Amino acid sequence: MISKGALKYIRSLQIKKYRLLHQAFTVEGEKSVAELLQSDFVLESVFATQKFIDKHTSLLRKGLEVVQVSEEELSKAGSMESNNAALAIAKMRPAAAFSWEEHPFVLALDEVRDPGNLGTIIRIADWYGLTSIVLSENSADFYNQKVIAATMGSFTRILPHYVDLASFLKNRPKSVPVFGAALEGENVHHLELQPTGVLVMGNESHGIRPEIMQQVTQPLHIPGRGGAESLNVGTATAILLDNFFRNI
Amino acid sequence: MISKGALKYIRSLQIKKYRLLHQAFTVEGEKSVAELLQSDFVLESVFATQKFIDKHTSLLRKGLEVVQVSEEELSKAGSMESNNAALAIAKMRPAAAFSWEEHPFVLALDEVRDPGNLGTIIRIADWYGLTSIVLSENSADFYNQKVIAATMGSFTRILPHYVDLASFLKNRPKSVPVFGAALEGENVHHLELQPTGVLVMGNESHGIRPEIMQQVTQPLHIPGRGGAESLNVGTATAILLDNFFRNI
Repeated sequence: MISKGALKYIRSLQIKKYRLLHQAFTVEGEKSVAELLQSDFVLESVFATQKFIDKHTSLLRKGLEVVQVSEEELSKAGSMESNNAALAIAKMRPAAAFSWEEHPFVLALDEVRDPGNLGTIIRIADWYGLTSIVLSENSADFYNQKVIAATMGSFTRILPHYVDLASFLKNRPKSVPVFGAALEGENVHHLELQPTGVLVMGNESHGIRPEIMQQVTQPLHIPGRGGAESLNVGTATAILLDNFFRNI
Repeated sequence: MISKGALKYIRSLQIKKYRLLHQAFTVEGEKSVAELLQSDFVLESVFATQKFIDKHTSLLRKGLEVVQVSEEELSKAGSMESNNAALAIAKMRPAAAFSWEEHPFVLALDEVRDPGNLGTIIRIADWYGLTSIVLSENSADFYNQKVIAATMGSFTRILPHYVDLASFLKNRPKSVPVFGAALEGENVHHLELQPTGVLVMGNESHGIRPEIMQQVTQPLHIPGRGGAESLNVGTATAILLDNFFRNI
């Protein structure tokens, strides 16, 4: 059973203020919790159905608090419409300084606000082997439960760095190019892009802010041929990353 | 004001059975309704705020029934969380036979079930200039309000063809290649794909069904380098279409 205190704590973690206060967040659903259990995240507790416990016994580390609960309790406690597997509470990773040496290529998001979009982008970044993501301070919260769900487990392999993006780009090593998605950029199909530098993706409605655009050394455009005015930011990120990684 | 009868009709159109019965569907939000008004869809009626009417007067055809309503009424009647612009009822396009001559390249979906995914895919297809989409009978409904919303207006430029996909592929002209997204396909980065033939995308969980896979002459794979097990079907469609259209 989930105690009243635990229920209150779980629900508080759906709000950013309390996630920051406790430096903790929730992970829901079979795939996401199973990936979490295989990662090096510090866990506070796991609430799981007997079925999940039986199926994933080997993943349940010694000393870990595992509370057996019903599907109804899980669905009531968490943010998913239905959850027949598990809900875990994990500690956020400590914020770390970004190292340019370790990341010859990095994806930077300028005020991407939609949690679903951010989650999709994290999954795509993981697909192409990135291990960090840089986000402007006003971007969606990496540890939001909808973001975590949309990453399909990729949140365990990508480290977020929230920064003042304008300063971050200004202070980069001089040789690092900055690419940015823009409607009036160069046709990516005519470039042989190499994954070196920074790729900036902008806000869902307004694109990249002018002060960030000033730092972009190579605007990029995905050529369209039909009537659609734009692509979703997750879709555009996927196409651009594929264009960067196709030549190596 | 939206009459009780109209309200009941609008709500019934959120259910596929009633959409089929009336051959009608709803379109919500400023961007989508504005695109609808610029298309050749037959309209039954438009419910709009004074603000929308003032802004888009030039789009309101003579003889069209436009009912001025409040934001509250719109949000209450429709499926969107909030709608400060308009809701329109339009007639579905009559089903048309698919013409291989008119579509040298076509996207076919095998049981793509999520309305958000289908909407995203329609928007991407429109971006790359496709004008039709082929769907297996069990795929999500093109006229579902969540699909329409996710297309961001692209539903006006793409015609759906629901077919028995196995027969459709079996009966294609002999020279038409069938590409299919599959984890064990050929690396798309090593192919110079041309937009000729059929590209099949499979179900969110199970991929392409075996009986459809039998018709695939060229399985395709997007090479990943990280830990993510798969890509979302919308994301994968975007990357593959970009690979088809980058060489022309």
